[in-house]
Amino acid sequence: MKKVCVISIHLTEERIQYIREACEAAGYEVAFFDNWQKAAEEAKDANIVCSPGPEALHGMKDLEWAHSTNAGVEPYVKSGLFDSGRVILTNSAGAYGLAIAEHVVMVALMLYRQMPEYQRIVANREWRQRLPIRSICGSRVAIAGTGGVGCLVAQKMKAMGAAEVIGFNRSGREVEGFDKIYKISELDKYLADIDLLVMCLPGTAETDGLLSKERIGKLPEASYVINVGRGSTIDQDALIDALNAGRLAGAAIDVTYPEPLAKDHPLWTAKNCIITPHSSGDTGLPYSVDQTFEIFIDNIGRYAKGEELVNVVNIKEGY
Amino acid sequence: MKKVCVISIHLTEERIQYIREACEAAGYEVAFFDNWQKAAEEAKDANIVCSPGPEALHGMKDLEWAHSTNAGVEPYVKSGLFDSGRVILTNSAGAYGLAIAEHVVMVALMLYRQMPEYQRIVANREWRQRLPIRSICGSRVAIAGTGGVGCLVAQKMKAMGAAEVIGFNRSGREVEGFDKIYKISELDKYLADIDLLVMCLPGTAETDGLLSKERIGKLPEASYVINVGRGSTIDQDALIDALNAGRLAGAAIDVTYPEPLAKDHPLWTAKNCIITPHSSGDTGLPYSVDQTFEIFIDNIGRYAKGEELVNVVNIKEGY
Repeated sequence: MKKVCVISIHLTEERIQYIREACEAAGYEVAFFDNWQKAAEEAKDANIVCSPGPEALHGMKDLEWAHSTNAGVEPYVKSGLFDSGRVILTNSAGAYGLAIAEHVVMVALMLYRQMPEYQRIVANREWRQRLPIRSICGSRVAIAGTGGVGCLVAQKMKAMGAAEVIGFNRSGREVEGFDKIYKISELDKYLADIDLLVMCLPGTAETDGLLSKERIGKLPEASYVINVGRGSTIDQDALIDALNAGRLAGAAIDVTYPEPLAKDHPLWTAKNCIITPHSSGDTGLPYSVDQTFEIFIDNIGRYAKGEELVNVVNIKEGY
Repeated sequence: MKKVCVISIHLTEERIQYIREACEAAGYEVAFFDNWQKAAEEAKDANIVCSPGPEALHGMKDLEWAHSTNAGVEPYVKSGLFDSGRVILTNSAGAYGLAIAEHVVMVALMLYRQMPEYQRIVANREWRQRLPIRSICGSRVAIAGTGGVGCLVAQKMKAMGAAEVIGFNRSGREVEGFDKIYKISELDKYLADIDLLVMCLPGTAETDGLLSKERIGKLPEASYVINVGRGSTIDQDALIDALNAGRLAGAAIDVTYPEPLAKDHPLWTAKNCIITPHSSGDTGLPYSVDQTFEIFIDNIGRYAKGEELVNVVNIKEGY
């Protein structure tokens, strides 16, 4: 009988019962913990662990599979626990898509509607209107990364009336919900015709610095950049320079490097830049928490039947 | 031959040509002005005027019809020029629906996602996450006012995944895009089951103070109020009290009374209240400007054919 260990600060009675039933249906034993320290002590013999991070895993000699309740799995990958290829790692990519997509709609509208400037006006208790504003409706949106997050961003942008939503992924393979998909290696060709570029890429060697100084230079001066993937995918210094020089209209940056940003980092004061503290895919949104467990439970069923798991992380590629 | 006078700061070559063609097709003469003073001097003999306000109209003895490029027409109504019933007034209701609906989505997400608090965190250059956030997806949204603005707000809220969008209007008549419509006189019955109340009502004797202290008290503590109609439709003092006492989770107020707010007005510092300076239906959005002229041109054709005009204002009701 496999032993399952679930570590989460979001364990309600309902969720515990739901996970327990799924484990019992699979013929597995399950224990729940609200902190990793306790789990590390009491669940040393676990075969399957569901946890936000890898901290509890180090002493678990019988570990076969770890499920990350986060989408990004850098701490897992860096732990070295998966290097041998003997332990499977799955993540919760997709679970945070809704939260992140709503963040993207919010900051896109804040940028298009000059909210940073309106908020300065209001902070001074002034009453001025008629700043030139724009609209998602009719916009040309490009999304770099067509995974769970990119797809939901595309869906919301179409729902809000974007004129065209194009996606970029490695292979150029078609993905539902996008008007067109291109290979990310062709990005340069399309940058000049974009109103809004949404970066939804994982942090990997391949995506490192993808939105380079040169590529930022190809974006229209009236365009906006949103990053909800990983900070490393943008040349941050080049972005700051472009914003401050008015070569880009604005940006909304939820992910930076490093995180947290130093108190004196120039990104804090970059022109028309909305910064959020890596909060876009907020792990506390009930819908998102439910989704992370849905993915886990779905995989429990698959594991018990010997089927292939979904959301398996390629350790070398890091996502 | 009727003489048409168009006053606007948004007259591009394209728009002038477009309006000119429509007037010529109707057999009318047309003159364009970028300020009302010049129009008042040079177009005294106008029969038809298209203008944001009534300032130029006072000396026009042959005036038959005035079209407001704004949706709200208080200054027109107060001018007394329409009291005799001899001069028709039309407005641009509907033209600002898109701009206002995008504003509503933006501030709804800002409230649901605790953006005011996140912006305080970021202003202090801190890096904290996991504030409890919520989602439009799955929300129960109520919209008071089912005219052009209310309809577009409903459409965007459904597009963003709201679970239920109910509307309130005077007669309770069905309106497309809403899950259900109720009479506004029945509002009290439904207030307790609302996550988000969006006020899209004109400022009339009937709507004055509609969201009273008593009704605010019936809203759930976790609910939000957005006002993009007129400030007079909410008991502003009661709203401020409820926000500061935590009896409402937050508000986004684009319209106030008076406007502008005095520098020391307590609304500026009400808890979790996003204030914008009556900018939601920004008259400068190119789409909106085009729409105001579309309504006018449509009516020019109707007027020439002796047909009934659209968007005719009932002077007594004020909208």
